[in-house]
Amino acid sequence: VLGGLEAIRTLQRAGYKPVRSIELLLFTSEEPTRFGIGCLGSRLLSGELTAAADTALQDANGNSLQEVRTSAGFSGTLDSVRMPGGYYSAFLELHIEQGPLLEQRGISIGAVTAIAAPSSLRVIIEGQGGHAGGVLMPDRRDAFMAAAEIALALETLARSTGSIDTVATCGVCNVFPGLVNGIPSRVTLELDVRDIDGARRDNLLKNFHNEAAEIAARRGVHIRFEPINQDAPAPCDPALVDAVVRASEKHGISCQRMISRAYHDSLFMTRICPVGMIFIPCRDGVSHRPDEYTWPEAIEHGVTILAAVLARQSAA
Amino acid sequence: VLGGLEAIRTLQRAGYKPVRSIELLLFTSEEPTRFGIGCLGSRLLSGELTAAADTALQDANGNSLQEVRTSAGFSGTLDSVRMPGGYYSAFLELHIEQGPLLEQRGISIGAVTAIAAPSSLRVIIEGQGGHAGGVLMPDRRDAFMAAAEIALALETLARSTGSIDTVATCGVCNVFPGLVNGIPSRVTLELDVRDIDGARRDNLLKNFHNEAAEIAARRGVHIRFEPINQDAPAPCDPALVDAVVRASEKHGISCQRMISRAYHDSLFMTRICPVGMIFIPCRDGVSHRPDEYTWPEAIEHGVTILAAVLARQSAA
Repeated sequence: VLGGLEAIRTLQRAGYKPVRSIELLLFTSEEPTRFGIGCLGSRLLSGELTAAADTALQDANGNSLQEVRTSAGFSGTLDSVRMPGGYYSAFLELHIEQGPLLEQRGISIGAVTAIAAPSSLRVIIEGQGGHAGGVLMPDRRDAFMAAAEIALALETLARSTGSIDTVATCGVCNVFPGLVNGIPSRVTLELDVRDIDGARRDNLLKNFHNEAAEIAARRGVHIRFEPINQDAPAPCDPALVDAVVRASEKHGISCQRMISRAYHDSLFMTRICPVGMIFIPCRDGVSHRPDEYTWPEAIEHGVTILAAVLARQSAA
Repeated sequence: VLGGLEAIRTLQRAGYKPVRSIELLLFTSEEPTRFGIGCLGSRLLSGELTAAADTALQDANGNSLQEVRTSAGFSGTLDSVRMPGGYYSAFLELHIEQGPLLEQRGISIGAVTAIAAPSSLRVIIEGQGGHAGGVLMPDRRDAFMAAAEIALALETLARSTGSIDTVATCGVCNVFPGLVNGIPSRVTLELDVRDIDGARRDNLLKNFHNEAAEIAARRGVHIRFEPINQDAPAPCDPALVDAVVRASEKHGISCQRMISRAYHDSLFMTRICPVGMIFIPCRDGVSHRPDEYTWPEAIEHGVTILAAVLARQSAA
């Protein structure tokens, strides 16, 4: 957001007069998954999410999106957020890579060609609880041990698709009752699977469902899958990708084409307009951590290219 | 506790006059593990836990036992709880089995010969966090996947000691940051290992430490073990075991000798006096769950034997 503001100010300071207006968009709730999915703002703006979400989406305490937003002072209907198709001629997003490739290769700009989309799902495993001392090992239906095996099966599947672009993560594991002396009776896992190739991702998920069901049956636990989110991967606009590459060449800044493994508001903006993304390196590929960092020079490179492409796209 | 009260009332109603006094003990905090260990009352009474625990024991919020008990109105020193050795000539505890054996075999009374003791420990695994989309599988140091493999290694070890008396449980798994789109950077497991044979239990723990360290090294994560608790198993007093068996025979109630896989305040009472335990069946071997249940007739059998043994032990 600040990079976009700086790019606009740079163009203003240079005396540039756009033919098409340039707007700075600040999306709400790109990151928080309080309601199970991120990118609430861009999902609503693009029509990916409809007014039904107002009551359908609930947080862990059972509060609906409508209740939460109303109590935070956001009135009006969700439908009113939707932007008509054709309103924007292009959408550009500047972001850190959130991966190690640019830094490792010493390249300053990534011209994003496509955005991998996550499929996230919740796996609820119900076994049989009991006292940790009282139930013999052969009689156990331990929900956590089943969950551990299921999580490892997911990892093995992700590592064996033959493509480096497949990633899978189990970021949430809630154990009930969660006592050192109690056999877990219920475990909830939340899984995230991503790939630039939607068919390969969906095939992995199909195999995962089968393997998890087999593990559950063998261990005598009940398993249930709840989809959280399943978005299609999206290509960036080839003309905008080219524009990023050419602007980099013109400014003597190194650039390579690459995919985005993380997803962004841009993913949803592809539903209503051509989209381009500009990546800059980040230290050790780290993000979503307190030590997330990129360098002032890297930011300057990113803003320079953003301003250049904005100027080109708004010139006619 | 109510069974003990009923046994005493039964003896009173029968006009029985004991030579030795009969006391009913109500221990505090047998079950809660707020401070990492259960049986706080009997540990203090038996001197297993000293006054140092007052500041050494802290809950998850960093509040010490001293702060918590003081704010709950319990003043005085912990040392004053300790009971001198020789004060009791015998201690008896009536309990549900918390296992399936009595019910499966249709036996009404278990005469406990020994109490298995848990060794519990905390395993802290530190990996590398990051965005679920941004870090490629070969570059990951996922703390949760390491934890899953470590938990399964524990289960395999417990199943392969050659004895049905070995049990191991992982009842706590806390994942940080705990986001569906974030690779876990830190996982805390809490494990409970029990055996009636202390040497076999400790051997399992030694093997577990080695295997867990090997898994951590292979996955590039850091691992650290923190003991929570390691009590020695304890035998019941043979004369009291015999007294339970003989009382059952006299009342025509079926009885068998057995071990207690769960531990109890009795474990700590063995430090200061002879101990006996009386088990009754519970439905499906279930305990520590809302559907924990035993039958009125089973309770009656237990109270009958408890009263009989109390009468015998207090008669001279």
